[in-house]
Amino acid sequence: MLRFLTAGESHGKCLVAILEGLPAGLKIEAYYIDKELSRRQSGYGRGSRMQIERDKVQILSGLRKGLSIGSPVAVMIMNKDYSIDDKPAITVPRPGHADLAGAIKYGFSDITNVLERASARETAIRVAVGAICKIFLAEFGIEINSQVLVIGGAKDKALMKKRIDEAARKKDSVGGIFQLKATGVPVGLGSYVQNDLRLDARLAAALMSIPGIKSVEFGLGLDYADKFGSEVHDAIYFSKKEGFIRKTNNAGGLEGGMTNGEDLIIRCCMKPISTLAEPLDSVDIVTKKPAQAPVIRADTCAVEPAGVIAEGVVSFELAKAFLEKFGADTLTEVKDNFKKYKSK
Amino acid sequence: MLRFLTAGESHGKCLVAILEGLPAGLKIEAYYIDKELSRRQSGYGRGSRMQIERDKVQILSGLRKGLSIGSPVAVMIMNKDYSIDDKPAITVPRPGHADLAGAIKYGFSDITNVLERASARETAIRVAVGAICKIFLAEFGIEINSQVLVIGGAKDKALMKKRIDEAARKKDSVGGIFQLKATGVPVGLGSYVQNDLRLDARLAAALMSIPGIKSVEFGLGLDYADKFGSEVHDAIYFSKKEGFIRKTNNAGGLEGGMTNGEDLIIRCCMKPISTLAEPLDSVDIVTKKPAQAPVIRADTCAVEPAGVIAEGVVSFELAKAFLEKFGADTLTEVKDNFKKYKSK
Amino acid sequence: MLRFLTAGESHGKCLVAILEGLPAGLKIEAYYIDKELSRRQSGYGRGSRMQIERDKVQILSGLRKGLSIGSPVAVMIMNKDYSIDDKPAITVPRPGHADLAGAIKYGFSDITNVLERASARETAIRVAVGAICKIFLAEFGIEINSQVLVIGGAKDKALMKKRIDEAARKKDSVGGIFQLKATGVPVGLGSYVQNDLRLDARLAAALMSIPGIKSVEFGLGLDYADKFGSEVHDAIYFSKKEGFIRKTNNAGGLEGGMTNGEDLIIRCCMKPISTLAEPLDSVDIVTKKPAQAPVIRADTCAVEPAGVIAEGVVSFELAKAFLEKFGADTLTEVKDNFKKYKSK
Amino acid sequence: MLRFLTAGESHGKCLVAILEGLPAGLKIEAYYIDKELSRRQSGYGRGSRMQIERDKVQILSGLRKGLSIGSPVAVMIMNKDYSIDDKPAITVPRPGHADLAGAIKYGFSDITNVLERASARETAIRVAVGAICKIFLAEFGIEINSQVLVIGGAKDKALMKKRIDEAARKKDSVGGIFQLKATGVPVGLGSYVQNDLRLDARLAAALMSIPGIKSVEFGLGLDYADKFGSEVHDAIYFSKKEGFIRKTNNAGGLEGGMTNGEDLIIRCCMKPISTLAEPLDSVDIVTKKPAQAPVIRADTCAVEPAGVIAEGVVSFELAKAFLEKFGADTLTEVKDNFKKYKSK
Repeated sequence: MLRFLTAGESHGKCLVAILEGLPAGLKIEAYYIDKELSRRQSGYGRGSRMQIERDKVQILSGLRKGLSIGSPVAVMIMNKDYSIDDKPAITVPRPGHADLAGAIKYGFSDITNVLERASARETAIRVAVGAICKIFLAEFGIEINSQVLVIGGAKDKALMKKRIDEAARKKDSVGGIFQLKATGVPVGLGSYVQNDLRLDARLAAALMSIPGIKSVEFGLGLDYADKFGSEVHDAIYFSKKEGFIRKTNNAGGLEGGMTNGEDLIIRCCMKPISTLAEPLDSVDIVTKKPAQAPVIRADTCAVEPAGVIAEGVVSFELAKAFLEKFGADTLTEVKDNFKKYKSK
Repeated sequence: MLRFLTAGESHGKCLVAILEGLPAGLKIEAYYIDKELSRRQSGYGRGSRMQIERDKVQILSGLRKGLSIGSPVAVMIMNKDYSIDDKPAITVPRPGHADLAGAIKYGFSDITNVLERASARETAIRVAVGAICKIFLAEFGIEINSQVLVIGGAKDKALMKKRIDEAARKKDSVGGIFQLKATGVPVGLGSYVQNDLRLDARLAAALMSIPGIKSVEFGLGLDYADKFGSEVHDAIYFSKKEGFIRKTNNAGGLEGGMTNGEDLIIRCCMKPISTLAEPLDSVDIVTKKPAQAPVIRADTCAVEPAGVIAEGVVSFELAKAFLEKFGADTLTEVKDNFKKYKSK
Repeated sequence: MLRFLTAGESHGKCLVAILEGLPAGLKIEAYYIDKELSRRQSGYGRGSRMQIERDKVQILSGLRKGLSIGSPVAVMIMNKDYSIDDKPAITVPRPGHADLAGAIKYGFSDITNVLERASARETAIRVAVGAICKIFLAEFGIEINSQVLVIGGAKDKALMKKRIDEAARKKDSVGGIFQLKATGVPVGLGSYVQNDLRLDARLAAALMSIPGIKSVEFGLGLDYADKFGSEVHDAIYFSKKEGFIRKTNNAGGLEGGMTNGEDLIIRCCMKPISTLAEPLDSVDIVTKKPAQAPVIRADTCAVEPAGVIAEGVVSFELAKAFLEKFGADTLTEVKDNFKKYKSK
Repeated sequence: MLRFLTAGESHGKCLVAILEGLPAGLKIEAYYIDKELSRRQSGYGRGSRMQIERDKVQILSGLRKGLSIGSPVAVMIMNKDYSIDDKPAITVPRPGHADLAGAIKYGFSDITNVLERASARETAIRVAVGAICKIFLAEFGIEINSQVLVIGGAKDKALMKKRIDEAARKKDSVGGIFQLKATGVPVGLGSYVQNDLRLDARLAAALMSIPGIKSVEFGLGLDYADKFGSEVHDAIYFSKKEGFIRKTNNAGGLEGGMTNGEDLIIRCCMKPISTLAEPLDSVDIVTKKPAQAPVIRADTCAVEPAGVIAEGVVSFELAKAFLEKFGADTLTEVKDNFKKYKSK
C-alpha cells in the first residue's frame, strides 16, 4: 500500500518525507522532482521568499543506481533560513490561519509553534512526493496538469494579473480557482464497495488538505444543481477501436467512486492568502487585548502554485489506487497486470 | 479510534455495520436511530420504494441495559425485498452510475453484481452509524442539521417542488444543493500536523463518499475566488463572557484544518439521480450493441435525504476527531477532559 | 486490502463480522464454514456449553448465487442463550481474565460488561472469517492445519487425555501447546521494507490476539537459543524440477519477514483456562473485601480448539499478504498474476 | 495516534524516521537518544563495524527550543560508509536471511538490493524512535529495560562469553534469549474489544519485527503448557495503600490483552546471526549453480543489542497505547488525565 508521512517546519532544518510502497525498478531522477518544486515556486503573485529559495530535493534512500528497490524513498529539502529556535514569540493570531485554533488546541502562548508547521511551506515536500508518483504514473501514460481559471473574480489572463497587482498595491491578497486534468486514466481505480475506498472521496480529502483550499468539485460540479438528469449524465457508446466511449464528460471521469476511463476533471477554490501586509483585527492571546496580526512576508496570490501542489497530491492518490488494482512488487509485474487488464 | 465498516446489498438480506471505539456509558436508543432512518426516507421526490420500506434498526451488540460498554456496536437493517439471487442479469449500464466501470473493474457480465452494492441503499446503514455518533455528540452540546438550498436551479421552496414535479412528469431526475450546519463544536478538532489529520480533508472525503455528491464547499466556498483577503478573513475579537469571537464566519468554522469554534458550514452539490425512467443511450456490455439502460424504480430527487445522510457521515467524523482530542474509555472521562479543556 | 471487524457478546443476540477485500468470483459455501465452526467446538475437555450450541453461520451479504462479488462479506452466528441484559452483576474478577483490568479501564462496577466481550466466544466469528480465507487460499493450493503437541506437560495422546481428566476431576484447567503448519505457501509474502509489513510480525499479532495465547514461536523457536548459526540456518540448493529447495526447515518458512517457500511452522502456548470451578482468591471490586471469583460454566482444556482458531487467524493474514502481492479485483486476475509469478 | 515510518539502507546516505503523534511540551534531548544508540552498538560479540560507527542522531523537525510542538519529529542517523551505488552485485543468497525470498519477490538478480534494506542496521533508527518514546514514558514513571538470559544455551554470564568466543573462533554465530521488563505500567493499556487492539498482539508484532527474533513469550510463556490453572493464575488481593495487588506475576503483566498493573515481563529468542564467516551451502541465483554465500562483515552475537532494540519497539507500543487511553494534544493534558485515572 502506497503511503507517506511528512515532517518539517517552515524555518526548521529541512522538510522531509518518507514514501513507501513503490514497486522496484522505477527510474527516479532528482532533476524531475526539482522541476516540479520550481513550478511550485513560480506563478505571478509570489512573494520575495520564493526568489531566495530555490528548493532542491535530496533523495536519501530507496534508490540504487537510480532505480527504486522496493524500500521506502525518503526525500529532503533543506531550508535556507534555519532559525526556528530564534524566532520571536508571536501572540497575535492571523485571522484565516491555523494560529488561534492551533494555539488553543496545543496550549501554546507562542503562536510560532503553530505557524511553523501549519505553513504552506510543508507543501513543498508533498510536491516532491507527488513528483515521484507522477514519474510512476507516466510509465502507464497517465498525465496530470493544472490551470488557473479564476483569480479574484477575473477569468481572463490579463485581468487576473491586474487583480493580483491591485491586491499587491493594497497590501492585500486574492484567491481563485484552478482546474486539474488527468489523462490516460484507466477504468476502475477506486471502488464503491466501502465508503473509504471511493476515489472521489480520497481525491477530495487530498485536495482539501492543501492549505487554503475551500471547495472541491468534480466535472460539472455545482452546475449539476441546475440541471435535469437527462441533460447531464454521460451517455455510453461503443467503438471497435476505442471500446466504450462518451461524447460528454460531465462526470469528470468519476462514476460510482471509480474512474470511468474519461479524463479526470477537478476544480478547487483557494481562499485569499491569510497573511496580509495590512493586517486585520485580532487579539493578543496572552493579554486578551485587541492587537494587529503580525506582518509576515507572504505571497499576494498562490492559486497557480496551489494547482501544482494539487497535481502532486492527486498523483499520489492515483498511484495508490493504481497499485491497489494492478499492484505488485516490481514495475514489470505492474505493467504486465495493467496490460492484461487493458486488453480485455 | 472510532471506525466502522458496512456491508449489505440493496436486495440482500440486510444492511449491517460495525462501529467501534465509542466510550462506555453512552445511552443509545433504537427509536432515535429509527427517526433518523425515517428522515432519510422522507423528502419530496422520493420514489415508491420509500413508501414500502420503513427501515428499522436492530442493535445486535455493544449495549447492555441500554448503555454502551466499550465493545463494538453492530447495527442491522433488514431488507423487505430479499431477492438478490433471483434478480435477472442486467447487461446495459446506466450512464452516471457505477455500472459500467464496476462491471469492467470486477470482470462482471451481469451488472446486477455492481448495482446491488453501489446502490444508495447502503447509505441507510451509514445513517444508523451517524445517528449513534449524533447521540454521542449531543452529550457535548454539538448538533448537526441540514437544509436544502437549491433544487434544479430553484432556490424557493415552492419553486423547488415545481421543479421536482416537472422532472417526475418528464420521467427525469433533478439535483441540487444542501447545506450542513454544526453548532456547539469546540476549537481544535482535527490537526494541521499531517495532511490526513486535517478535519476539512476528512469531512470532504466523508461527504464525497455519498453517492451523487459532486462538490463540497466550506464556508464561503467558491465565493472566495472573487474576493480580497481583507474582505473575507474572519477578524478575531475577545469578550470576557464568550472568549475569542468572530463577527463573521466566512471560513465555515474551519481554519488550518481545525475547527475554530464557529459553526461548521458546509455545502454539497448532488447530481440528478442517474436512474432515469426515460433512459439514456447506452451499450449492451455483452453484445456491444446500442441499447437502452434499464428502468429501475427510483427517486426523482434525493437532495433532502442526501442532507440527512450527510449529517450522519459528518457526525461520525466529528465524533472521531472529538474522541481523538478528549478521547478516553468512558463517557465520564471524556466529559471530564472536555470540561477541563473548555475551562482554560 | 483485506480487513475485518467483529462484534458481539457472549450472551448477546449474535456474533457478527464484516470481511472486506475479497476478489470477485470466489465460491463460498456456508457448510464449509460450519464445518470449521464445528471443529472449534470439538476437542477433548470442552465444557457443557459446547454441547448445547452447534454454531451455524449465516452469510448476510457479499455473495450472489454463491459467488463473492467484491462487496464486503458479513457473517453472523446467532447465540442460543441471549440473556446479556438479564445477567446478574458480577463484582469479583477472575484471576487470569480481562475482568479486573477491564473493569478499571472502562470504569465498570459490574464485570459482566467486560467478560461478555472478552469471552473466547468471540473467536467463533473469527473462525468464520478464517474459513472464508481458507477457501480463498485453497484456490492456490495453500492449506493450513493444526495439531496439539502438549497438554499439561504431556506429549503423548493418551497422557494428554489423562491430564485433562485429572484437571476436570480437580475442578481445575490445563494448558498446552499446538503447532500450525501451512503448506503450499509461495515465496515472498510479507516484506522486510517496513516493520509493520513483516509477515512474522503480523502472524504473531494475529496469534497472540487469541485469548489465552502466551507464546508464539516460528520454526525452531526457542531452540535457536542453544545453537550455532552453522547448525540451524537452512542451506539453499537448486533442483531443476523444484527450483530452490532446502533440506531443513528450521526457519519455519519465514526469512527476513517473508515466506521463503517452505512450510510455515508455528507453535503457540496456551495458558490454562482462567475460569476455574474451584476459584482462586480474589477481591470484590465494590466492597474491596476478599471474595471468591465466580464459577462460570467453562471448559477444562481448550488447546485443540485454540489450534482451530489459530488456523483461522493465520488464514486471514496469509490471504491478506497474498492479495497484497497478487491482489486484484477478480479471482481470475489473482490466478493469472500468481501463475505468472510462479512460472518465473 | 502515534505512528512512524522509517527509511534508509545499510550503505545509503542515512537512516531516517518520522514519528508523529507526540503531545506538545515534551523535552527531547539528542544526547539521550545517542546514549540508547550507543547501547545498541555495545555488547560482547559485536563485529568491527560497531567500532567504526558511533551513531549520532540528528533531530530534523518537531522541536522548538528543545520541546516537542505537536508536529512530526523526524530523526536521522548518517551512515559513515555511503557506498550503496558502488557495492558489487551479489548473486548468492545467505541462508537465514531475506536474501533469496527478497530477490524472488522483487525480481532482483542482484541481492544487494535486498540486503541493504533488510539489514539489521535499520534497527538503529527504530532505537532512536523508541528512545523518544522512552522519554515520554519516563514522564509517567514507566521504565523499560532488558537483560540477556541465555547465549548459546549458557545461562551464566561467564559461560555466555565463552560461548561467544567459541563461535567467533569457529567463524560461526550464536543466538540466545533476552528478557524485557517494564515497570510502572498502569492498568488498562490495550483492549480486548477488537483483536487488533490487544496490547499483547501489538507487542508481539513489534518484537517479532526485529530481525532474528523467532519467539515471543509473555510471563510464564511456554511453562504454562505444563501447569494447572490453579497453579498459575495470579490471585487478586487488595491493600489500602497499593490498591489491587498480586503476589505472583505469571501473566507477565498482561490479562485479556491489557496491562494489569503488574510489571510487563517478555522474553524473546533470537536466532544466531545469519551471516557466517564460514558460509553455508547456497546457490547462485543467476547461474543456478552451487556456490558459497558471501562473507560480509558481521557480528558473532547480537542478543544484547537486540534487547536494546526490543526496549525501543516496546516503548513505542506502550507510548501509543498510553496516548490512546490518556491521549491528548499536550503533555499537561495527558498528565492531568493520567492523574485523574490513577486517583480513582
